[in-house]
Amino acid sequence: MKAVILLSGGLDSSTVLYQAQADGWESYAISFDYQQRHRRELESAKAIAHSAGINQHQIVSFDLTLWGGSALTDRKIDYPRDRTLDRMSETIPITYVPARNTIFLSFALAWAETLNAQRIYIGVNALDYSGYPDCRPDYIQAMQEVFRLGTKQGIEGNPISIVAPLINLKKTEIIKLGNKLGVPWEKTWSCYAGGEIACGLCDSCRLRLAAFEELGLKDPLSYAQNTNT
Amino acid sequence: MKAVILLSGGLDSSTVLYQAQADGWESYAISFDYQQRHRRELESAKAIAHSAGINQHQIVSFDLTLWGGSALTDRKIDYPRDRTLDRMSETIPITYVPARNTIFLSFALAWAETLNAQRIYIGVNALDYSGYPDCRPDYIQAMQEVFRLGTKQGIEGNPISIVAPLINLKKTEIIKLGNKLGVPWEKTWSCYAGGEIACGLCDSCRLRLAAFEELGLKDPLSYAQNTNT
Repeated sequence: MKAVILLSGGLDSSTVLYQAQADGWESYAISFDYQQRHRRELESAKAIAHSAGINQHQIVSFDLTLWGGSALTDRKIDYPRDRTLDRMSETIPITYVPARNTIFLSFALAWAETLNAQRIYIGVNALDYSGYPDCRPDYIQAMQEVFRLGTKQGIEGNPISIVAPLINLKKTEIIKLGNKLGVPWEKTWSCYAGGEIACGLCDSCRLRLAAFEELGLKDPLSYAQNTNT
Repeated sequence: MKAVILLSGGLDSSTVLYQAQADGWESYAISFDYQQRHRRELESAKAIAHSAGINQHQIVSFDLTLWGGSALTDRKIDYPRDRTLDRMSETIPITYVPARNTIFLSFALAWAETLNAQRIYIGVNALDYSGYPDCRPDYIQAMQEVFRLGTKQGIEGNPISIVAPLINLKKTEIIKLGNKLGVPWEKTWSCYAGGEIACGLCDSCRLRLAAFEELGLKDPLSYAQNTNT
């Protein structure tokens, strides 16, 4: 039984990949080079895919800087730094990339149907950093309907299911789960800044560092600055 | 008021582009180079975009031959030739590309949200050649829900609408509409075969030629073979 796993190389999607393997699925990971500021994450995606020993890893390339619209796809828009966790979840952040998960899930769906896979795993999370509209349960449910109605497998009564095992977990709970599954955190990548060392100041670094700290654990990744310790 | 129009360069999407212009929208056309067998259609998309005098035309590139799964994206799978119209609609054809419209609509959504557009026009059609699951009204409705729930504009109560003006039209009715709108048919492209002249034998050519014939009109495009005349 085959599953396609969306793998950014970050903490959440790496945990989901290990979860899919633990659930006994033949795993096919898919990553996206969309000319994101933090393309460095793709090196981590490859390392994690290799560590997990999956069946196949596809990297799909396209260019979302064609129209930008986000701090992650338009170099002229700066990303937020050094914000408290409260501030992060006030509004939809400028790091929101329009329709990103819809694009990602569409490609995953295309590959899954070609593989005759049963499941797509995605590491969306609605609790921490919940400002992204395409990380919430009702959005995932709407995509599930698209999967059911818009594919041959769906029409034939065998729709591909979306599984979002982290959707109701806090970041600390994800770390606990990943520890149980043996995810090699030092190989993952969360930083938005675009450097070769994680910055420690962007929302993504801050959220990750705060969660490790709350658990009394040390994040094994190196940071340029770590205001949490 | 801005609208994004999915433009393949074919008869249907060209008619839709002209319709969007007639409806008074500032038009932004989007086309896709997915390494399709019939990439020749992109030349037609450019010509139609130019003829219609639209605001901007984006061509987004990615590679669906990475996994294939269709006669249009896997050169080892042959496409059907010389089929009657009855045969074409019996089952989901091998020219079905898994999740294609979902991918296309996702990119259109991303661009539309960046432009702060109100509408996305798509030339899907559920009557003729209705074997494609992602051309039916309930699929379009499911995508509309995704647009509403998965974007900033949607969350803020201003979701982008999907408009599918051809969904319940027969091919002959589309041609009549296009004639009224002044679509230059000789610049469009429907053929799946991948040559520089339309083959006249693939399902797409047959359907188009049959419709012109039924109307007592001549298709101004040149064909290598035309079994209808």
